[in-house]
Amino acid sequence: MGRWQPNARGRLAQAALELYGERGFEQTTVAEIAKRAGLTERTFFRHYADKREVLFAGGAVLEDLFVRAVADAPDSAAPLDAVAAALEAAGTVLMDREFSRQRQAIIDANADLRERELIKLASLASALTAALRRRGVADLAASLAAEAGIAVFKVAFERWIREAERRGLPQLIRESLDELRAVTAGS
Amino acid sequence: MGRWQPNARGRLAQAALELYGERGFEQTTVAEIAKRAGLTERTFFRHYADKREVLFAGGAVLEDLFVRAVADAPDSAAPLDAVAAALEAAGTVLMDREFSRQRQAIIDANADLRERELIKLASLASALTAALRRRGVADLAASLAAEAGIAVFKVAFERWIREAERRGLPQLIRESLDELRAVTAGS
Repeated sequence: MGRWQPNARGRLAQAALELYGERGFEQTTVAEIAKRAGLTERTFFRHYADKREVLFAGGAVLEDLFVRAVADAPDSAAPLDAVAAALEAAGTVLMDREFSRQRQAIIDANADLRERELIKLASLASALTAALRRRGVADLAASLAAEAGIAVFKVAFERWIREAERRGLPQLIRESLDELRAVTAGS
Repeated sequence: MGRWQPNARGRLAQAALELYGERGFEQTTVAEIAKRAGLTERTFFRHYADKREVLFAGGAVLEDLFVRAVADAPDSAAPLDAVAAALEAAGTVLMDREFSRQRQAIIDANADLRERELIKLASLASALTAALRRRGVADLAASLAAEAGIAVFKVAFERWIREAERRGLPQLIRESLDELRAVTAGS
């Protein structure tokens, strides 16, 4: 048993991100990540299955959060309101803009990671669709509310991590959702 | 110079799809595809760069069609109307439901092909966004109209290739678009 390491997981993630940025994702080893974080490889593997998971572990958290928020929305909430509640819940968890920015730069630089990111988004849409169906929403409405919600999230997230952006993610999500409503109503 | 082969491209695509379905995508060779089509490997490579391109060549056609339809929409058309015109144009080109159904079964059975399909959809969304911007649509509205349009297309396409489905793709696209409008207006 090693000593207890305060915030080992966060330190490993930060070290990994720095190294991926400096040397590239492919060129970085788990040994280097552990060393940079001042921890052992054994500790790394207690937190992450491999070096890719450092970048995508947040996706599972997000999916869980989306599904709970949709389930917890009041019975009276329309499908898109339940989705909006899910997106706003995500907006309160994704707090570290600089971390998300660095992470995205690493993903954008690597075709395999970009593919993994697209799979994660598709999986979020499927999870949202299933959560809406469990509320009794009909198939077609559930699919479209979920897909439209993920579109809103994607667009808001892209804006959030832009260099000059100062608005918070929850606000950008609300603005994107309003714009979606305007775009679909405006014709 | 070989003899002129009537519809060599279509015959190669049909032969490839049959073989991918029978043996799996990985296990099929270009030599086998050419043989099944009664053509030579040389003819295959005149039409397709590799055996994966047989499945995805349609994506480039679709993207081109989308971009033209958005550009051709009347100046007075709202962003989502221009997108709707693009989707309906696609609906008139994708005619062979059985081919699309077989193609999807092959893609669903292979993780690499599923990733390629997601990349194709993301690329369609980017192309639509860019086409809307060239019409003078503001960034946020362009992104959301394009992403929402791709969501509509994806959902309609999934319904179209269901076993029992009899409605045509243009009709399913219109129904999905109407449902998107209802879902975004209904809260």
